[in-house]
Amino acid sequence: MKKSDLRKYAKLVAKVGANIQKGQQVKINASIEQSDFVLLVVEECYKAGASKVSIDWNVDRLTVINYKYQDLETLTKIEDWEIKKLERETELLPARIFISSANPDGLKGVDQAKMMKVRQEVGKVTKKYRDAIDNKHQWTIVAMPGVEWAKKIFPNESNKKAKELLWKAIYKTVRLEGDPIENWKKHSNNIASKNKILNDLNIKTLMYKSANGTDFKVSLTGKTVFGGGYLDTIQGVRYNPNMPTEESYTSPDKYSAEGVVYSTKPLSVMGNLVDNFGFRFEKGKVVEVLGDEFAKETLEKLISIDEGASYLGEVALVPFNSPVNETGILFYNTLFDENACCHLAIGAGFEDTIKDFEKKSPEELKEVGLNDSMIHVDFMIGSADLEITAETFDGKILKIFEHGTWAI
Amino acid sequence: MKKSDLRKYAKLVAKVGANIQKGQQVKINASIEQSDFVLLVVEECYKAGASKVSIDWNVDRLTVINYKYQDLETLTKIEDWEIKKLERETELLPARIFISSANPDGLKGVDQAKMMKVRQEVGKVTKKYRDAIDNKHQWTIVAMPGVEWAKKIFPNESNKKAKELLWKAIYKTVRLEGDPIENWKKHSNNIASKNKILNDLNIKTLMYKSANGTDFKVSLTGKTVFGGGYLDTIQGVRYNPNMPTEESYTSPDKYSAEGVVYSTKPLSVMGNLVDNFGFRFEKGKVVEVLGDEFAKETLEKLISIDEGASYLGEVALVPFNSPVNETGILFYNTLFDENACCHLAIGAGFEDTIKDFEKKSPEELKEVGLNDSMIHVDFMIGSADLEITAETFDGKILKIFEHGTWAI
Repeated sequence: MKKSDLRKYAKLVAKVGANIQKGQQVKINASIEQSDFVLLVVEECYKAGASKVSIDWNVDRLTVINYKYQDLETLTKIEDWEIKKLERETELLPARIFISSANPDGLKGVDQAKMMKVRQEVGKVTKKYRDAIDNKHQWTIVAMPGVEWAKKIFPNESNKKAKELLWKAIYKTVRLEGDPIENWKKHSNNIASKNKILNDLNIKTLMYKSANGTDFKVSLTGKTVFGGGYLDTIQGVRYNPNMPTEESYTSPDKYSAEGVVYSTKPLSVMGNLVDNFGFRFEKGKVVEVLGDEFAKETLEKLISIDEGASYLGEVALVPFNSPVNETGILFYNTLFDENACCHLAIGAGFEDTIKDFEKKSPEELKEVGLNDSMIHVDFMIGSADLEITAETFDGKILKIFEHGTWAI
Repeated sequence: MKKSDLRKYAKLVAKVGANIQKGQQVKINASIEQSDFVLLVVEECYKAGASKVSIDWNVDRLTVINYKYQDLETLTKIEDWEIKKLERETELLPARIFISSANPDGLKGVDQAKMMKVRQEVGKVTKKYRDAIDNKHQWTIVAMPGVEWAKKIFPNESNKKAKELLWKAIYKTVRLEGDPIENWKKHSNNIASKNKILNDLNIKTLMYKSANGTDFKVSLTGKTVFGGGYLDTIQGVRYNPNMPTEESYTSPDKYSAEGVVYSTKPLSVMGNLVDNFGFRFEKGKVVEVLGDEFAKETLEKLISIDEGASYLGEVALVPFNSPVNETGILFYNTLFDENACCHLAIGAGFEDTIKDFEKKSPEELKEVGLNDSMIHVDFMIGSADLEITAETFDGKILKIFEHGTWAI
């Protein structure tokens, strides 16, 4: 890992990922393992004009200990000053940078039911503050190799070598070669053109078929658009919420999913990896989890966290020959794996996929019929033989995906 | 560093240093470099009955960057939620554990005047909350080797070897050999007996002489006692605020110091090392800083932070042949160096040195005439030839220290 490459990456994160504005505050969430890189990002945020940069340091092993020893009352207690802090952040609207590097198995051993309960209880109080800053601040999720994460991917390599290999993959997928800021301008525009083609088609229903058993369809409301790549805040600041990103995505009609869909990559659910699972949908709702006992238990808990957790919130189209998939790596990390191939997400839909969402009242946004939930969990369904057929609102039928990639 | 030794140490910190009570919350302040040890301390706190353990992670390099880029307004801004948090802590009274491991030069490069101004402004707001928890909660300062700290002491050793050598010295001075909890029981009782002898003497004035030029006296108020070793909170919980500790200390009459006193060890002032300095006192106040330009500049800034910063708050007696001094190491860290030999401190006196302080009103405590300040900075004055003569309130003259160690 050359320092100059890390510096280039840090600058990309500050300028293109979060697009820090002059005088804006910044919050960074990162593992203590990434302190060297975090300090570079902090400096680049200040150089971009940040007035103040704060850091929430993550230590998964501490979370495991806290869950072991703290009772439910303590874990779910939210102090008045914490509410005050959340309130203040709805005024200050700091940009947020999440540096992902965690061991996919890092929370193994935590009582899952307890963790779910805590998220549920804490979510009840904090959701309105999350909603209040939605679409009003820039945020970006990026990744840096952590030793345990790298060893999960490359178990037979030394710590150092494993980190180097993961860094090479990240380097490639976030387009650091040459002038990364220029690379991202081009890449974002490419995704935007793909979104435009999809939106011009005016798609009503997407029908998925694959040899793995996937036979599934989901409808759109006609009131949403496909997005992906950059986003704009209501105030008009353009940012890139995910690096890497390859997807064109939208939010479906909550009650429309029908049929069976199988996951094609493992999913990390609160630190636990679930593999070879599927869902059967009826009228939009998951009516059956398919898979082994562990998968069923874990996912049934996940989808029962609230009413919306068993409905879809996202439909995303990614060619199976994406740069992420071309690394040949299973990253065990949604940021990458969701940009490897087509996916869906259970849980909250994205209000910003609604046409002219920034001009609509909260009531009007509700009427569109997107799903709402405190969770949003992506799972991959793309495969080399995936076929997607679209039916448009004016009755045309056409192939969108063939042999796992764009047919349009 | 054997894991079993670290575990023993962590348990000592939780049980004897902070003496965590069942159901109590704990706050730990530590460098991210110490995460392995911190996690052991966290576990031992929970085992001792802690309900919740929170950690404030320190990163000196981040402080340096923040001071470089943030303006004074941002650095001194205290949000309402931060006040709410301080208020809440005066109710919850969490035990506090400070794990010291920082590079003594870690804050080099920070604009000192700016840092002083920030401490001053922030101190104005936060001091009342610090005062409100004084003597009501347990706290302890302990140390773990950091790489840069260790290399400062052992510059010619490898990182690993330097850390090992520093760990050996810490191991010895915090009495980890054998049963550390039992060791500390004996050690605390020894210090308590020494305090009793000093208190029974009823000392009025201490007169210091050394060949280095020290010719200095300071008086006590007659209303204070010598303490050291363990402390008891008002609620009656016994704890050890410093590990190691070797001192018998008290707070002098604010206006009594006269003459010249020279430091015998370097002092770290906000990340800067100051060496070969002295102070000339008149009527308790520093009227001259002695030393080179850098020492003068640094210390004159320090003593002008508030009115009390140029008066003494502590007088401490430590034999020159203490275990800390016997390691032969200059630690560049007050926690150790102040337990190597006799010292004084400019800044705040200790209310808990006042006889029956827990039964006195705030007004009565004020009347005793101890110094008050937002700072408390120890500096070492012990030497192998230091002589201290005492005059008692009933007119007796006797030698307290001869050849740098106890004469009583």
